[in-house]
Amino acid sequence: MGYNLLKGKRGIIFGALNDKSIAWKVAERAVEEGAQITLSNAPIALRMGQINALGEKLNAKVIAADATSVEDLEKVFSESTEALGGKIDFVLHSIGMSPNVRKNKPYDDIDYKLLDTTLNISAISFHKMLQVAKKQDAIAEYGSIVALTYIASQRAIFGYNDMADAKALLESIARSFGYIYGTEKHVRINTISQSPTMTTAGSGIKGFDSFVDFAEKMSPLGNATAEDCANYCMAMFSDLTRKVTMQNLYHDGGFSSMGISAEVMEKYNSGK
Amino acid sequence: MGYNLLKGKRGIIFGALNDKSIAWKVAERAVEEGAQITLSNAPIALRMGQINALGEKLNAKVIAADATSVEDLEKVFSESTEALGGKIDFVLHSIGMSPNVRKNKPYDDIDYKLLDTTLNISAISFHKMLQVAKKQDAIAEYGSIVALTYIASQRAIFGYNDMADAKALLESIARSFGYIYGTEKHVRINTISQSPTMTTAGSGIKGFDSFVDFAEKMSPLGNATAEDCANYCMAMFSDLTRKVTMQNLYHDGGFSSMGISAEVMEKYNSGK
Amino acid sequence: MGYNLLKGKRGIIFGALNDKSIAWKVAERAVEEGAQITLSNAPIALRMGQINALGEKLNAKVIAADATSVEDLEKVFSESTEALGGKIDFVLHSIGMSPNVRKNKPYDDIDYKLLDTTLNISAISFHKMLQVAKKQDAIAEYGSIVALTYIASQRAIFGYNDMADAKALLESIARSFGYIYGTEKHVRINTISQSPTMTTAGSGIKGFDSFVDFAEKMSPLGNATAEDCANYCMAMFSDLTRKVTMQNLYHDGGFSSMGISAEVMEKYNSGK
Amino acid sequence: MGYNLLKGKRGIIFGALNDKSIAWKVAERAVEEGAQITLSNAPIALRMGQINALGEKLNAKVIAADATSVEDLEKVFSESTEALGGKIDFVLHSIGMSPNVRKNKPYDDIDYKLLDTTLNISAISFHKMLQVAKKQDAIAEYGSIVALTYIASQRAIFGYNDMADAKALLESIARSFGYIYGTEKHVRINTISQSPTMTTAGSGIKGFDSFVDFAEKMSPLGNATAEDCANYCMAMFSDLTRKVTMQNLYHDGGFSSMGISAEVMEKYNSGK
Repeated sequence: MGYNLLKGKRGIIFGALNDKSIAWKVAERAVEEGAQITLSNAPIALRMGQINALGEKLNAKVIAADATSVEDLEKVFSESTEALGGKIDFVLHSIGMSPNVRKNKPYDDIDYKLLDTTLNISAISFHKMLQVAKKQDAIAEYGSIVALTYIASQRAIFGYNDMADAKALLESIARSFGYIYGTEKHVRINTISQSPTMTTAGSGIKGFDSFVDFAEKMSPLGNATAEDCANYCMAMFSDLTRKVTMQNLYHDGGFSSMGISAEVMEKYNSGK
Repeated sequence: MGYNLLKGKRGIIFGALNDKSIAWKVAERAVEEGAQITLSNAPIALRMGQINALGEKLNAKVIAADATSVEDLEKVFSESTEALGGKIDFVLHSIGMSPNVRKNKPYDDIDYKLLDTTLNISAISFHKMLQVAKKQDAIAEYGSIVALTYIASQRAIFGYNDMADAKALLESIARSFGYIYGTEKHVRINTISQSPTMTTAGSGIKGFDSFVDFAEKMSPLGNATAEDCANYCMAMFSDLTRKVTMQNLYHDGGFSSMGISAEVMEKYNSGK
Repeated sequence: MGYNLLKGKRGIIFGALNDKSIAWKVAERAVEEGAQITLSNAPIALRMGQINALGEKLNAKVIAADATSVEDLEKVFSESTEALGGKIDFVLHSIGMSPNVRKNKPYDDIDYKLLDTTLNISAISFHKMLQVAKKQDAIAEYGSIVALTYIASQRAIFGYNDMADAKALLESIARSFGYIYGTEKHVRINTISQSPTMTTAGSGIKGFDSFVDFAEKMSPLGNATAEDCANYCMAMFSDLTRKVTMQNLYHDGGFSSMGISAEVMEKYNSGK
Repeated sequence: MGYNLLKGKRGIIFGALNDKSIAWKVAERAVEEGAQITLSNAPIALRMGQINALGEKLNAKVIAADATSVEDLEKVFSESTEALGGKIDFVLHSIGMSPNVRKNKPYDDIDYKLLDTTLNISAISFHKMLQVAKKQDAIAEYGSIVALTYIASQRAIFGYNDMADAKALLESIARSFGYIYGTEKHVRINTISQSPTMTTAGSGIKGFDSFVDFAEKMSPLGNATAEDCANYCMAMFSDLTRKVTMQNLYHDGGFSSMGISAEVMEKYNSGK
């Protein structure tokens, strides 16, 4: 029941792991909207997740790649343009991981080697993707590139640790590269700042379910789900948003514009 | 050549004057996307503009209304739900006028009665619209309401005068009412901060063409046109953006995220 | 125990009512820092409050004025420059009142005449003050003008009603006028976005104490008090901040940069 | 001619190179305001600059340290608390360097090893500084930590390259760590986003003088100088700003709140 919004368009979706992943939903919706896509994730994610099944279902080539490796990314873009038969119209970057979070290193006692890993996987991979794509001239005019982020980049959230900083870096890369890629090739680059979402990655963060509940009650429309996010991505990949670039777009049921809601106040007041 | 994005939806478009108006393009695109609409503008605008011709072309009832009159707005909403046969799914507020600008009163010598008029027409009309709609329960669940604004509300622009303040007030109303209407009825309210656009209204501002040129060269994708804006409105009215609310969305080719572009620097450097 | 930061400076403080008022503390601190000042408030506030006692204590002339009256404001500036023997170096605008709040009109059922009053008293009074001062050339080069605001202007807060919109308008006026007054006379204009403070005005807002508690636990440094705010105003009035203008400065113990704190999460989680 | 604002306070100033450095001016002003300080910079900077002369003049111990080395930073804090006889009240981080800029690598062809260096020197050094200080419990209650940044972190500026991303990361670290350090020890952490300043570092950026001229004409008060910045730092280090934390404070003569000034428009219009 799509609108043919992406008919004839070609895309690459990075970061689908399983059917809870936002990237998974985006891939499904993109195909539903008429696009042809390829899928990419890290070799280990390919083994642990169900991405190959998704590839079969969507008739999408799956390309294993370490997103921190320029060489691997070159392969993704060249194989994708070849498999899809032309330049790429849209890309989703849904990649993030913090070994400091995984190892329960608090933010005031982080390991700096692990911080490098966090930044490389979660943010610098986006720059590499863009630089590789531009060097290969792999993106079509007015192509649309989206990376997923969250509001911890702008407002401190208990427990997000160095992922907050990685997301701030990611959002900056979107702006910095968006200027150049927009000017030279009309390629637009935006980040979508999504509600906390119960994906496999999200679930790994301590106290995440409490935060999801808090955000749900703080957001006038409730949290945006993975399906909602996939819908929003369709709008951002389509020709309807060709002049939107270098923006950090809050997709969060209104959370980002809230100080405090009556519902949160009520539950908070009843606590101690 | 639409996508049927608004199939079965009902909308009200405020502010179309002639075929240069953004609201005019939005009306055309909405119908193209399958919506049924009504059109509204001030009695004087109906006489001076070509809105009746547009109404005929789009098979849309035209309802004269002074947007500062609660009574008139009540009529617009009740007649629209009746004419369209059900609750309203989307509304565009594209209304703004400053008699201080028209009379060349500089911002440090404004007339306060005229300021009241500026605020009433350009911003408070939006609150009245929302309050009337909510009292009549005229908007459908997850209805989408958009008001047009521009960046002068956030960054001082030579010559915009008290319209800058009116737009800041408008954006605040979107947030304040968005919280309530979102919580109670899932209605989303956003503002689109559009590139300077050569409409009849825009042309009235002194030095506007220079600013359009400056913005064009500052924006990596160039200025967003009225047609681009109509497309963006389609995305915002559609079900693809159901969890976006209380946002001020820059639709400006990247202008808002620019400090300075190479192109502006070059032309600036050659000046004296 | 001051630093002589304002030695030789002349100021006008609008809005002191009683010793809970922020403006009251600012007046005391300004004199402690070596300034000479005048005080102004509405005639009714003069009768109800203790401002005359403050005037005597600080050796400051008290000038009754309705801040919505251009004529009255003209009197304040001309009498102040005369009483203080020269141009004014700093001004505090601490004026705000919403009859819609007082009459318990909810934001989706406000009275528009009362809204006009809210905007006129709380925001447009600031423009009038600036326009009058500039016409009289009453402010010294690099003079510093500060208006108090709060974060409801940017993020929806349950119960703030049309004061949120008034504060957004106030912040916009600071930017718009700041551009002109800065360019022509080097006068700087900023707003300080203060923590919720238990003044007589604040106490009037329904559920205000709950919000104060929430903000206290959300803010890493706790809420800024009226005394803290007076100290910050000293910095902003002094020559140490001569190049800061057109800013909305959060003075809130970090609240504005928080998503959620551990302390709020804990109390919230224990509620129902 | 100070105010004794920092009387009895102890500080560490990182990043003074020569008398054009902002850190140099801050060091001089801090001593003038009654503080005792130590100075730190990289060994190579000590050899190339005149920091030892500054140390003698200000009676300040100079501690050589590579700011990317946790070990070196531990030495700076332990030697500083010892030399100054107590906990530290204020710290200035004025450190930034991009080898990609130096080697003229454009932003869409950067070297990723060099990017790591940019981020490590310009941003992660700040986290290391904070983590080391907190582990040593070296900062006094309500201590004030400031890092210098610029607006390229938020708005794309031709030629700033990966320094823009480094500054975005730096600003995020200030927020993330500010939450923790504020909550646990009342230590406040802010960034000052300074006008482009003709320091030795600034001069290294291609086309920097043009940007300085553009910013000068765009800013209602003109660009903030290094001396202005030193004054602003005094306010931020003092007890007058004890409740300001996690903020990015624009110190730029109004640049950040400008869309376009009449002066820029005029020169731009005369160009081609």
